[in-house]
Amino acid sequence: MARAIEIVEVGPRDGLQSEPEVLSTATKLELINRLVASGLKRLEVASFVNPKRVPQMADAEAVLAGLAKVPGVQYVGLVLNRKGFDRALAAGCTEVGLVTAATNSFSERNQGATTEELIRTIEEIAPLAREAGVRMQVTLSTAFGCPFEGEVPAARVVEICRRLAKSNPLEIALADTIGVAVPSQVTALVEQVRGVVGDVAIRCHFHNTRNTAVANAYAAVLAGVSTLDASVGGVGGCPFAPNATGNVGTEDLVYMLSRAGYDTGIDLTQLIETARWLGEQRGKPVPSMVSKAGGFPAGTVRASA
Amino acid sequence: MARAIEIVEVGPRDGLQSEPEVLSTATKLELINRLVASGLKRLEVASFVNPKRVPQMADAEAVLAGLAKVPGVQYVGLVLNRKGFDRALAAGCTEVGLVTAATNSFSERNQGATTEELIRTIEEIAPLAREAGVRMQVTLSTAFGCPFEGEVPAARVVEICRRLAKSNPLEIALADTIGVAVPSQVTALVEQVRGVVGDVAIRCHFHNTRNTAVANAYAAVLAGVSTLDASVGGVGGCPFAPNATGNVGTEDLVYMLSRAGYDTGIDLTQLIETARWLGEQRGKPVPSMVSKAGGFPAGTVRASA
Repeated sequence: MARAIEIVEVGPRDGLQSEPEVLSTATKLELINRLVASGLKRLEVASFVNPKRVPQMADAEAVLAGLAKVPGVQYVGLVLNRKGFDRALAAGCTEVGLVTAATNSFSERNQGATTEELIRTIEEIAPLAREAGVRMQVTLSTAFGCPFEGEVPAARVVEICRRLAKSNPLEIALADTIGVAVPSQVTALVEQVRGVVGDVAIRCHFHNTRNTAVANAYAAVLAGVSTLDASVGGVGGCPFAPNATGNVGTEDLVYMLSRAGYDTGIDLTQLIETARWLGEQRGKPVPSMVSKAGGFPAGTVRASA
Repeated sequence: MARAIEIVEVGPRDGLQSEPEVLSTATKLELINRLVASGLKRLEVASFVNPKRVPQMADAEAVLAGLAKVPGVQYVGLVLNRKGFDRALAAGCTEVGLVTAATNSFSERNQGATTEELIRTIEEIAPLAREAGVRMQVTLSTAFGCPFEGEVPAARVVEICRRLAKSNPLEIALADTIGVAVPSQVTALVEQVRGVVGDVAIRCHFHNTRNTAVANAYAAVLAGVSTLDASVGGVGGCPFAPNATGNVGTEDLVYMLSRAGYDTGIDLTQLIETARWLGEQRGKPVPSMVSKAGGFPAGTVRASA
């Protein structure tokens, strides 16, 4: 039996958040529904942050209200503080994603607080999530490099993960926020972090800024990681990280994993159609490669004209 | 000491051949000289084919005549038949690259002969190259998949490589002509081919059509391959292979390899400047990612504005 790899679709949040255009709530809902239809079961659909700071996410409550509950499908809300957590809970998220960064410079520019303060926020919210019966996971930004501080010592990432694991999140995601990681670094960091997080799973989040995202994802899978973030069409980036282009495209990742013999449970043909449809909605083609080239062999998935 | 990985720069031939624009001989010469200055020591600079079929390569002799001999630098000419070999020799190439394909459909559409006929051509030219004192290597196209026949059985690739090895080429390159390979396939095929080629080295040639090229290159390196083709700026493709977008970008590969601790002998900053310069010459930015994002940490290599 093929080993299963779970993909968390972050396009509707991490992807769209960095787009210059703001998609309508109806378009976002159609996007999410299409992604669910293609087989995705965990989708980051909204960010409960200050709408003045991230106008693309101002309709977070409306998006959640418009989504049909589908058995087995988790709608994840990004939450940066207690206020955001309360909003996500009220909106009906079944999973919340919390965030801190491996560097203070990034924590402060991205979330307006030090890494230590953000960890304390996570420690405050973790028991509340448990009481409320919602899943809770944590992402550690700039785990492979920081746009402001440069190289991030692995020892610092390991120490933060050791502490985060005490809050018993569903998983800790090592995020290459600015797309600088290389596969050897992924192999080493995953191994080191695994040594300190006990039973807490490791997720990985890669950006393709320097064309290494698929290589990093494969290295993570070989290192035993079974959950990866990806963004339909490869849209996204980070508005507060200079030069951070898109997340790895979901269809690029699904193509590689499927052809390498892993089971993602996702229909590549449908996913490619959705990526192309998203390109039409935003008025320019999405940056992923498989959305242009199609799958292989020809006929399995249609190539674009 | 860091393990050395040799990169064969194929941009001036495989890259430019598929561009709609035809660069002037002077521009090609400046490109090649810049690449040599950045540390590249093996460059595929021309194709000795019918200029009516590939007008971008019509100035093959003029390119070779205009290049300064640099100690330790090999100028490779692509050669598809005896006539091309004679031209390459007369033009002063120090290395010739011969080609066949793993599928007849591709051999016939790309080179107008069956795979068997092309192998016989290679067997005819090999001793002539040895007598003439020029290096000779072979590329096997569609080794990971064919645009016309779909999946290519690994056993067929292995059998062709076993036969090609008897001509004792400098190396046999496994080429993913249409960019369909995934890293697990690279690992497996390199191992199988190694078992039948004796002392003949294996080179790999990847296209990034489905965003897997850097992952494939890393898998090849882990499997013991020490020579990889790449194209500055990621330009190129194949005019006879539908949807085959560019070769893996040299700077993308150098970025990944250098940060992973391998020694390519190439100055990434200079290489990125050349990729951006090439974008200006062709009138549109090159598709590689590192040429846009710059290296890391910031300051090591300037990011673009």
